Amino acid sequence: MKTRITELLGIRYPIIQGGMQWVGKPELASAVSNAGGLGIITALTYPTGEALAAAIERMRSLTDKPFAVNLTILPAAKPPPYADYVDTIIASGVKIVETAGNNPREYVERFKAAGINILHKCTSLRHAMSAERAGVDVVSIDGFECAGHPGEDDVPGLVLIPMAAKALRIPIVASGGIADGYGMAAALALGADGINMGTRFEATQEAPIHQNIKDALVAATERDTRLMFRTLRNTARVLKNAISEEVVALERRPGGCVYEDLRPLVAGVRGRAALESGDVDGGVVSAGLCVGLIDDIPTCDELIKRMVRECKAHLDRANGFFTAEECRS
Amino acid sequence: MKTRITELLGIRYPIIQGGMQWVGKPELASAVSNAGGLGIITALTYPTGEALAAAIERMRSLTDKPFAVNLTILPAAKPPPYADYVDTIIASGVKIVETAGNNPREYVERFKAAGINILHKCTSLRHAMSAERAGVDVVSIDGFECAGHPGEDDVPGLVLIPMAAKALRIPIVASGGIADGYGMAAALALGADGINMGTRFEATQEAPIHQNIKDALVAATERDTRLMFRTLRNTARVLKNAISEEVVALERRPGGCVYEDLRPLVAGVRGRAALESGDVDGGVVSAGLCVGLIDDIPTCDELIKRMVRECKAHLDRANGFFTAEECRS
Repeated sequence: MKTRITELLGIRYPIIQGGMQWVGKPELASAVSNAGGLGIITALTYPTGEALAAAIERMRSLTDKPFAVNLTILPAAKPPPYADYVDTIIASGVKIVETAGNNPREYVERFKAAGINILHKCTSLRHAMSAERAGVDVVSIDGFECAGHPGEDDVPGLVLIPMAAKALRIPIVASGGIADGYGMAAALALGADGINMGTRFEATQEAPIHQNIKDALVAATERDTRLMFRTLRNTARVLKNAISEEVVALERRPGGCVYEDLRPLVAGVRGRAALESGDVDGGVVSAGLCVGLIDDIPTCDELIKRMVRECKAHLDRANGFFTAEECRS
Repeated sequence: MKTRITELLGIRYPIIQGGMQWVGKPELASAVSNAGGLGIITALTYPTGEALAAAIERMRSLTDKPFAVNLTILPAAKPPPYADYVDTIIASGVKIVETAGNNPREYVERFKAAGINILHKCTSLRHAMSAERAGVDVVSIDGFECAGHPGEDDVPGLVLIPMAAKALRIPIVASGGIADGYGMAAALALGADGINMGTRFEATQEAPIHQNIKDALVAATERDTRLMFRTLRNTARVLKNAISEEVVALERRPGGCVYEDLRPLVAGVRGRAALESGDVDGGVVSAGLCVGLIDDIPTCDELIKRMVRECKAHLDRANGFFTAEECRS
């Protein structure tokens, strides 16, 4: 395929694996890159710049295709070593970075000086426009459907993607709610030049997470995600499980709830335990609404090939609705 | 255009005007039908079966094209004369009915015996499957983006439309979040055979509502709708205004809120006053998230022609991303 995204990033298909803490490791990211998409290593998975450098080195041993490093900046009492991550990314000669979580302004100059293409992921039109002004190369626009942090505006892709396509000059990537050729076709029809998928890539053979979690994603329906931490205005879309149900119940109880009520739970919600142990109730598992569309656990190569084929078929079907006269005009 | 919807309903374009109380009158519905879409008269706009019969007669004086009557069944302390509406629809020789708000089971047999095609609008996959089993001809699947009653599941079209397309054998119409050729192209790519639009048709020259309301829809952004009556599990998506802000504030106040708290407001929220007087704060105005995509007030004919043209252009652009080899395989 040939879009502004494939051209800019040097990839075969405009399909990007979303940044995912504990999941975006070389095993998965290299499988995506080798299949013609863009694999992404997530910096936050690694405690230090050195550990990230080792992951980048391992990535290079697994693929000679383009890949990216995700740098998500979130508020934290004990911030991760962001400056070390940035130094490592530049020193390692990484060519593509995905920023998220905060305005990328302070990093743009250094990354651009190093010849790095910057994809910035955000969940609102105003943040997308501000990122474009800051000088990023691509905006990944993340709708209400998405796993992780959808923001507080609750605007789904069907509205958000065309708004971004009309407002921005740089190419956009559609993120959230996409898991198959239907969503890919829709995203391109809505004005995107590519798509981003997180949850769908979690349910692949190569995802470095416990089989129980992959099975839980397959079993989940479109009604099995929860929005937690709404009361903190730090909403996260996660899989329904014992922990997320407890958080949501607390947040909805009559009388309201404040951060102090949630604090004991916040400490327990980190997703790594569930992903590694396979105990679905052992931690919070990010999952987007597209779990309702996920029915199997293919390899990344099978998934990407199938999506591209189905995307073309769905677009062909839609095009076939027009009469010969309408096609000429 | 030619889809299962245009063939079944005998219309030129698979574009349906959503049922809207106080708005779905012959002035608007005939303009939509004359432009090649399907105009819909909303039964609830009329106090009696006789008044509905007069509207149907007026509709026939304004168009010789197919049109439908919407029959929305909502819980009410003083229910409207539903049985009279049904008798009138059948006696008037109406050929298409849109049901909504409740399982259409009890009406299917009579409508089908009268040769009437039934479109059933619902907001979840399980209700769509139940409507198909009940014998309706088309399901209009209404995503989280929609104006009016989105249900309580909060699943947007990007996920809900392909789920319905995969699960149902009968044709589906995509509803919610669509206001332009982008959304139309996406809906068709997601597996729908047609689209339904309410809010977009409110902002047309022929919509029989006050100019101030049309101007307010044009001015509104994607962040200017509110979900009210969540606490009653009877959620309505409406335009942000003095009343909806008051309701939402009451529903979110610490200590919670019960129906008795909302009762004084419920009486005041009826939308007719605002639509007719042009006082945007004079009542509640249903509005979908697609207000963010609405920038003008065209005629229905201009709108439909433009959407069809843009839909084709967006599909062509997406198709152009595939290489010659990918197109052959």
